[in-house]
Order: sequence, then C-alpha cells, then structure tokens
Amino acid sequence: MNQGILYGVGVGPGDPELLTLKAARLLREADVIAVPDKGAGEQTALNIIGQLAQGKPLLHCSTPMTRDQAVLDRCHDGIAREIADILDQGKNVVFITLGDPTVYSTYIYIHKRVLALGYRAELVPGVPSFCAVAARLGTSLCEGSERLLIVPASHKDLSDCLDLDANLVFMKAGRSITELQDRLRERGMLARASMVANCGMEGEQVWQRFEEMQEPSGYFSIVLVKEGT
Amino acid sequence: MNQGILYGVGVGPGDPELLTLKAARLLREADVIAVPDKGAGEQTALNIIGQLAQGKPLLHCSTPMTRDQAVLDRCHDGIAREIADILDQGKNVVFITLGDPTVYSTYIYIHKRVLALGYRAELVPGVPSFCAVAARLGTSLCEGSERLLIVPASHKDLSDCLDLDANLVFMKAGRSITELQDRLRERGMLARASMVANCGMEGEQVWQRFEEMQEPSGYFSIVLVKEGT
Repeated sequence: MNQGILYGVGVGPGDPELLTLKAARLLREADVIAVPDKGAGEQTALNIIGQLAQGKPLLHCSTPMTRDQAVLDRCHDGIAREIADILDQGKNVVFITLGDPTVYSTYIYIHKRVLALGYRAELVPGVPSFCAVAARLGTSLCEGSERLLIVPASHKDLSDCLDLDANLVFMKAGRSITELQDRLRERGMLARASMVANCGMEGEQVWQRFEEMQEPSGYFSIVLVKEGT
Repeated sequence: MNQGILYGVGVGPGDPELLTLKAARLLREADVIAVPDKGAGEQTALNIIGQLAQGKPLLHCSTPMTRDQAVLDRCHDGIAREIADILDQGKNVVFITLGDPTVYSTYIYIHKRVLALGYRAELVPGVPSFCAVAARLGTSLCEGSERLLIVPASHKDLSDCLDLDANLVFMKAGRSITELQDRLRERGMLARASMVANCGMEGEQVWQRFEEMQEPSGYFSIVLVKEGT
C-alpha cells in the first residue's frame, strides 16, 4: 500500500470565498482533515471550510497555550506521530491552517516533523491575513520602492521597527494593541495607522484611523502603518 | 441604469489552481476583463485565468516601461477613464493582477483613480508570490517571533535591510540578482539564502542554496534569507 501524503493547506484569512481552488479540491479529496485547536482562531479555520468538511473524519490537534518549548515539542511530536499513523494506512491528510501555512502557522512545526519521519508533506499557499486587511482598508500594503515589514505579536522590541523606512504591519492580540497605540503616538506615527480586527469574520471592526480605536476588542487585530510622504 | 463595479482581483502567483473561489466567480460573472500589459509578467496574468477569460471582452491596458512619473500618470488616467466608460454602461470590470493587488501591483494606481472619479471599486486579495516561493522551498517565511521584511526590486539601499534582525524577501529581476548575491556573500549571509525564479510558471527554477546559482535567469526571481540561529 502506498503511503498517504500530508498537505498543509492555507484556508485564507476568514472569508470562505478566499479559499483557493487547490485548497477546495484537496479538502474534497481528503481522507482525513486535521484541525488545529488552540483557541478561538483555530475553530475559525474549520468554520471557513464549512461544508467541505462535512462527512470527513476530523483529527483534532490540540496544542497547549504555553511558551514552554519542551511541552510544545512533545505535543508537536505526538501530533506528527498521529498523522504518520494515518498516512501509513494509505490515507491523505489535509491539515488546515488560517491564512498561509508559511506565515506564523503552527502547522510548520508539524510539517518538519512529518518530513523528518520520512513521509511526503506539501505546503499549499493561502491568502495571508494582512493582504485581506489591506484590501478591506482599500489601500496598498506596498507600492513602488516601498518596503514592507511584518511584525508578529510576540516580537518584543518595537524601537528598531519604528525607525525603519518601511510600511509596517503589526499582528497583535488583545491588550498589546493599546501599548502599540501609545508607542505610535509618541513617535508621531499614529495618524498614519489603520486597524482591522477579525477581518472577514464575525465581529469584524475597521478603523481607518487607528487613533480613534478606544477599546481593545477582538481576538486578533492587524495594524497597518504607512510611511510618511 | 446602475453603474458597474470595478474589481481589482489578485490571480495568485502562477499556478491556476491558486486562484481563489472569489476570483473565479468574479471572472465568470465579469462583463469585461481588464488585462495589464507591460511585458512578460502581465501576459502571465491572462495565462493564469485561462479558460475563465474565454468569450469575454478583454480591455488591454498598456503601461509603458518608464520611470517618468508624468508619463505614467497620464497613462493611468487614460486607463481609469476607459474603465469608467465601461462602468457607465452598467458593466462590471474585473482587472486581473498577478499575486495580490495590494502588493506592488500596478492596479492600485488605477483603483485610486477610478474611486476618485466617483465609481465603486473593490480590492480582492490573492496569494502573493512570496508565499508560493516559501511553499515551493518547503520552508516558512516567518515563525514565532521572527519578523519578515519584503524588499522590492526597485529599492536601492540594501545596507539597512541586511542589518535588520528579520527574515528577508528580495523581489528581484534579471541582473540585479547577481549584485544581491555579492552583497549577501560579503555579509556572510549567502549560505542562508534560497531562490526561486518564475515560481509555479513555465521555466521555474529552484535553488535551495542561492550560492549555487551561477547564471541570472528568468524574468522574476525571489530570494529568501532566513535569520541565523
């Protein structure tokens, strides 16, 4: 029996219509759909694919909310082993992931492990959340010779980001958004910032002027700061 | 009669299966498909959508290969006016663009003008080329607290990019790729760099080790440099 293949599939930022044709096909053809589960964001990945998951066996892959690397490693090892067992049965597994699988996804840790165990695994690109946010704001992420710097929630040092001559995307959760607002105000950059929370999903909120956002809300927010002209 | 709507639709990086469901639907429903035309890259956008363009009137939108801003402005004004004429007939126009329309697209200049003329225009996200490149290389663009800096071909100053603590994406054409190779070698960063030319398209070339690339080739190349560990 041939071994199955693991596909790490980006399902896009939220709107089910932003799935790619390839993602839709692979989901229809999948024997098992693996669903990451670490909180509100991941249930969303399952919501996005909606009816494409109907009648398919789901493999729920829980990862704990911890920064303890040893705990995370053990957890990822376990998920990779579970997936390998399914691949050994000749079944294909589609692991769904919000946005794009190469951009801050948990999937990449599973991908490396499954490859290391000697199985085939492929990455299938999706639309990253920051592209959807720019579209929602009706603006470009970058034009002409502008550079674009993406800064994740977990990056601590903001100072060298704010010094760089580039458009900036901050991916931030919950309260840290207020701190970012303060830092941008100090630097006189706040007037050039916009924000979208839960883009394309339930509870979407859009601030063309980030400075008008008073109450941090939403599980996940993206702030775009354009260069001064 | 109602005015038509302009949709600026990202058709993804090259593989026709990386179109989104929304892009495919809008193309099927389109009255007119606007096709940018400034060289090899743009014919590609039309190739990507393939049969979805069949039987549809095409509006060819030529932009000259020049850095003269006044010439470009006149050209963009003219295209916006042509599109507005079609919208006035109650027809919807889908303007196709490689990758994502908010990432270094020519479309954004048309978008702004058509909005300024008082028409409705929407941005429809697509998969950007750099996501497809990372998937092709089997690696992440960014993980955990890593930042990601995107640098376009037209950005002249490389020094502060190379100093920044971030993963780097260089979008480069033709000969400038050799210069980039030299600069990365000088900085001891070349061993961490990979390159893909014409990702997902005819003539695709992949160098997991960018240092092994001897002959610059391909209209469009993307180099990914990961942070040292």
